[in-house]
Amino acid sequence: MNEGGRVARHTARDLRSENRFEVLHALFDLGPSSRQELARHTGLSQATVTTLVGEFLSEGVLTIAARERTGVGRPYDRLAIDPGRGRIVGVDVAETYVVAVVHDLALGVLGEGEVALDEHENGQGYVVDGIVTAIARAVEAGGTTRERIDGVGVSMPGHVHPGAGVSVFAPNWDWHDVRIEELLAARLELPVHVDNPLKAVTLSEMWFGAGRAVDSMAVVNLGTGVGAGIALNGSLIRGTTNNAGEWGHTLLELDGRPCRCGRRGCVEAYVGAAGLETTLAALAPDHPALGLGGQREFVAAVAEGLLAGDPAVAELLARTARFLAAALGDLVNLLNVPTVTLTGWMSRALADWLVPAVRAELPRHVLPGSLPGLRVQASPVPGNAVALGMAAFTLEQFLARLGLASPARARAQ
Amino acid sequence: MNEGGRVARHTARDLRSENRFEVLHALFDLGPSSRQELARHTGLSQATVTTLVGEFLSEGVLTIAARERTGVGRPYDRLAIDPGRGRIVGVDVAETYVVAVVHDLALGVLGEGEVALDEHENGQGYVVDGIVTAIARAVEAGGTTRERIDGVGVSMPGHVHPGAGVSVFAPNWDWHDVRIEELLAARLELPVHVDNPLKAVTLSEMWFGAGRAVDSMAVVNLGTGVGAGIALNGSLIRGTTNNAGEWGHTLLELDGRPCRCGRRGCVEAYVGAAGLETTLAALAPDHPALGLGGQREFVAAVAEGLLAGDPAVAELLARTARFLAAALGDLVNLLNVPTVTLTGWMSRALADWLVPAVRAELPRHVLPGSLPGLRVQASPVPGNAVALGMAAFTLEQFLARLGLASPARARAQ
Ligand SMILES: [Zn+2]
Ligand SMILES: [Zn+2]
Repeated sequence: MNEGGRVARHTARDLRSENRFEVLHALFDLGPSSRQELARHTGLSQATVTTLVGEFLSEGVLTIAARERTGVGRPYDRLAIDPGRGRIVGVDVAETYVVAVVHDLALGVLGEGEVALDEHENGQGYVVDGIVTAIARAVEAGGTTRERIDGVGVSMPGHVHPGAGVSVFAPNWDWHDVRIEELLAARLELPVHVDNPLKAVTLSEMWFGAGRAVDSMAVVNLGTGVGAGIALNGSLIRGTTNNAGEWGHTLLELDGRPCRCGRRGCVEAYVGAAGLETTLAALAPDHPALGLGGQREFVAAVAEGLLAGDPAVAELLARTARFLAAALGDLVNLLNVPTVTLTGWMSRALADWLVPAVRAELPRHVLPGSLPGLRVQASPVPGNAVALGMAAFTLEQFLARLGLASPARARAQ
Repeated sequence: MNEGGRVARHTARDLRSENRFEVLHALFDLGPSSRQELARHTGLSQATVTTLVGEFLSEGVLTIAARERTGVGRPYDRLAIDPGRGRIVGVDVAETYVVAVVHDLALGVLGEGEVALDEHENGQGYVVDGIVTAIARAVEAGGTTRERIDGVGVSMPGHVHPGAGVSVFAPNWDWHDVRIEELLAARLELPVHVDNPLKAVTLSEMWFGAGRAVDSMAVVNLGTGVGAGIALNGSLIRGTTNNAGEWGHTLLELDGRPCRCGRRGCVEAYVGAAGLETTLAALAPDHPALGLGGQREFVAAVAEGLLAGDPAVAELLARTARFLAAALGDLVNLLNVPTVTLTGWMSRALADWLVPAVRAELPRHVLPGSLPGLRVQASPVPGNAVALGMAAFTLEQFLARLGLASPARARAQ
């Protein structure tokens, strides 16, 4: 039942592209599988799956991992993505670093390259050089060459327009409508896809995390910036200008703490790394964790304080958990999602203390009708979830290009 | 591109049911149309549209409104929904009233019936009696009979479970898991569909309001209760337990005003009718609008005060507009919807002052990337939008039942 919504108007080409992608996604979910298992998992007909698998085999995307036989039945193939078919690079650009990760076609990690960025130097050339260098390091670490790379996906902080321009409202950068996709594609001589980190972490969570069990979720990113990727009924929510998910800039407290977006009282000003510094400074102005210079050093010191039973840091955690539970309560009350996962470097550093404390606070903030079955958990996605999500976006685009060139295209239309 | 979301697994039956519905929805959008216009508008093939129109004609749902000829071309039919085919009742149950509206199959209003509910008496029998009486009055006013009614859609306040039980957390009612759909179907001897008013107003907005221009929107309901229906990419967002949209119980101010949900600082406590009373009481404790007894009388007095230039009431409006803009800013920052419409009895009473004041405040609360093109407007849906939305849900269910019984079913499978 579509309840009167405009049904997406699928052309034969869109539908075929989606079906190809569904088969591939099923292989990520199931591991090596028979055609019959793929049909059951995707809901596609056996005939359609057989056609698509034939295409993928001839394109070299799939390989026959094993030929098996059950009892007296006919032998059947167990299919797998051929990791050797090509290389996909995912890049996580933050204000203080660039991490590039080379993946095989099955999205296994082959190698990583990192470049530190000086947050006070942020010209376009400086950042582009950092991205190019990080990719070169990852390519070397991954034992591959530029020629084998099928595409590069780059996550940029701030507001990434669907047409690939980037604007950043964070005070550190002052970019406006920078055509970063074009700039990078020209420098790298490779297909480049640019998106926003919230969209990337959400796609990784849908494919490799909570999305294995549920179709709707909020993926809450805690670090210098704070935001929430949203997936509803299996669709990533982008918003009308690809700017959905700015939960970090929703109110916790009208006229509260100043936020770097210019508003006062935003969630980010309480549960972002700088927000924790503000909270601790109010509790214990002379606390040694406050004099360390960088946010990562501060959060590491907080984790150490929690391990050591430092009472000021314990109180910081309790207040932060209350702020976070209140802000997550808003997200759950509005969207009634069954699952919230916490991701980002600060989540990883503090999850052992933060997750149980938030779970204990949450019933005070969630409506009774949305509480039963609600799960709050640290994201189970391994490695750099931003780079992985960008690689998944890029894989999708690569498969679509490959499908257009496939001889099966004429048959399907 | 589906971006790795799980594609909804369409069976042939689902797809046919959706296509039937798309054709009908197109007729609501376009008015009387040719098969060619319907194919263009829905994106369905001419052959599919011709088949579905044939079914609808034989079921009596469509009628040939005119036979036309352009130039020397072949004559073609202009098709319309046959309003005489049947009757659909939509019912809006609130804490202080029941309004039932009889619609024809084209969702034109034929007659209305109202029953006042005493908000202090809320036993199940009392409320069910009120619903039955309101429907009987509407049936009489609409010049029809119970036998001609194809279905009844009833909106209940509070949390309506998909399985048709109702729980209410509002203090006035104390219902828990009341099987209202069964109770009403037994009393009325008619198919009954129960849902929540936020879902109903959103469906009316999608069909007859902002949804004519955009696929994504928030429909903000202001009255005793406050909430926001959400449609994204043409889909109504229900949430995992049909409880999405409780924006009224997201925070404006941590530890702020007490809210009737038990939390403190919720949006509803500032921009619901009781919230306005609280704001005015702080500004002018002896203001005559405060002693009138009912919320509707209070809001009517506020509107009169605004017309008359009462300075305390003008300040109440300015503060309310600021609260509302802040809370709408959160909604837009999170969901990046292009359109927000205001609905509900309090919106209607105050829209002339509230809408321009909110528009002026909004840029202070919305991220720059989500502001361009953002529209905030009073809902253009005429009449009782809750009853209309419930009638539209019920029409959808009626068409699905009819389609299952249609001889075309075998052909399509
Ligand atoms: Zn902010
Ligand atoms: Zn509340």
